[in-house]
Amino acid sequence: MRPLIGVDWGTTSLRVARLDIHGHAAEERELPRGILTVEPGGFLQVFEQACGDWMQQPGALALICGMAGSRQGWVEAPYAACPAALDELAGQLCWVEPGCIAIVPGLVCRQGGVPDVMRGEETQAFGALKLLGRQDALIVMPGTHSKWARMRSGRMESFATFMTGEFYALLRQHSILARTLEDDDHALDEDALRRGVDHAMACGHLLHAAFSTRTLALFDQLTPRAGNSFLSGLLIGEELRARPRQAGGDALVLVGAPRLLQRYGAALRHLGVEFETLGHEATWQGLAAMARFLETGRCPQAA
Amino acid sequence: MRPLIGVDWGTTSLRVARLDIHGHAAEERELPRGILTVEPGGFLQVFEQACGDWMQQPGALALICGMAGSRQGWVEAPYAACPAALDELAGQLCWVEPGCIAIVPGLVCRQGGVPDVMRGEETQAFGALKLLGRQDALIVMPGTHSKWARMRSGRMESFATFMTGEFYALLRQHSILARTLEDDDHALDEDALRRGVDHAMACGHLLHAAFSTRTLALFDQLTPRAGNSFLSGLLIGEELRARPRQAGGDALVLVGAPRLLQRYGAALRHLGVEFETLGHEATWQGLAAMARFLETGRCPQAA
Repeated sequence: MRPLIGVDWGTTSLRVARLDIHGHAAEERELPRGILTVEPGGFLQVFEQACGDWMQQPGALALICGMAGSRQGWVEAPYAACPAALDELAGQLCWVEPGCIAIVPGLVCRQGGVPDVMRGEETQAFGALKLLGRQDALIVMPGTHSKWARMRSGRMESFATFMTGEFYALLRQHSILARTLEDDDHALDEDALRRGVDHAMACGHLLHAAFSTRTLALFDQLTPRAGNSFLSGLLIGEELRARPRQAGGDALVLVGAPRLLQRYGAALRHLGVEFETLGHEATWQGLAAMARFLETGRCPQAA
Repeated sequence: MRPLIGVDWGTTSLRVARLDIHGHAAEERELPRGILTVEPGGFLQVFEQACGDWMQQPGALALICGMAGSRQGWVEAPYAACPAALDELAGQLCWVEPGCIAIVPGLVCRQGGVPDVMRGEETQAFGALKLLGRQDALIVMPGTHSKWARMRSGRMESFATFMTGEFYALLRQHSILARTLEDDDHALDEDALRRGVDHAMACGHLLHAAFSTRTLALFDQLTPRAGNSFLSGLLIGEELRARPRQAGGDALVLVGAPRLLQRYGAALRHLGVEFETLGHEATWQGLAAMARFLETGRCPQAA
């Protein structure tokens, strides 16, 4: 296989890796150069800083996923349509330098006339299927905008976005709830998180349930320290409340950063839901799988 | 009756009125001196500025409702317990100057172990009942924190808070949705509002539905101008989605400022729900009713 460089270029961070044919990272680097920090026209330069040395290898191929393909990114890579299989994504790569640097298209899913979109998570989801040797799964990728992807027969059948992480940040930083919360958000109080999950489930209504974070504190039923975890549990519970309609009988797979895996894991265990977990290696696996498609020619539109 | 001055002292504004025995305002003033603008210890001075001249009348009585009774207000007036009747509120007034200036207590309602609170809306709700000559109603008071109060046999039986206005402001100003919305929020597009209501009802999940404000704009299915009204409809629809559990067979009464009455009214008409509307006169009516209780001595604990 040609030397492969995987690039996960998001809104706030840039991660690059030298990958072997199996998608394992021989070397990784992380830079605080998310697309928001890059001037228009400056993407090639940042890319060279991140992995220009690796690109010197003869025949090197870089595959990029994430917000680098958005309108505010390096080059806008048009969304591919969901349902989609991994080879269809590989066939619709957006080539920045023909045969050498390509951006994976995001996906658009249309249900009930309303579009939903993802960029980067499609690669993560297909990589997760490969890593687990599965064809079917419900893949949950928590984050600022959590994505739930239903995978069937190796294809992504549908997906939905939940603004859970962003709502948490908004409420913690800018709402009246902030007045009774601690500034430091790093310590997790699992008891308080579970209380939040239970309250979201029982209430079924975020606009109402969220106010409890304030009233419980007013009546000394919630400490400022526990408040953050309660609010986190409330929002995760509100997201998980949609689960039955999403799930069917598929295995649930959580893919994400350790901090979020810990929180979502605690919530799912509390609800008695079985799940498997994966980290960011799923992204590298997804990019490597696309590179293999390009290599074997099983992907006719590839350059 | 003694000369009565009604004071509605909220977080961001201060309204005062000279009231007749029927609760009609002979004269009204509004000052941008919500409690957030008042230094601790400075409340009497602001009060004097607002209505000191009216207080010169022999035997003048001032009744104050709203956040002036909160911990950050003039004097903390302990919450009265809901269910409650108007005479119970009048009997638990917090006297700032005995026999002369009093603050109406807020209410606390405990359902399922979780407290909910209001300050000011209790006065508005009882005033609304008086104005309509009703004993039973479901009273909706839209705002930063909307309150739904169920009134039965002239008493407030229970209530619930929805953070609708605050969520709208957070999403419009601080979230990713702001990028595809117009700054100016004054023009209402009723079609877009109705689309938002429908989407909230169909989706049943705010964390998911809210993201549509962005994706519809990305695919040119929502203009920046219509976006604000769509988001407003989405949040109002999300609040109204809880209605069946709140309503029973009672009349629905909307009480609030014209801008919110217009929006909630459009949403309710779209859903085929009948309702009546009242403005801020409900507050004056509630305060006058409490003054009558004090006057007639039908309220034993009164000073």
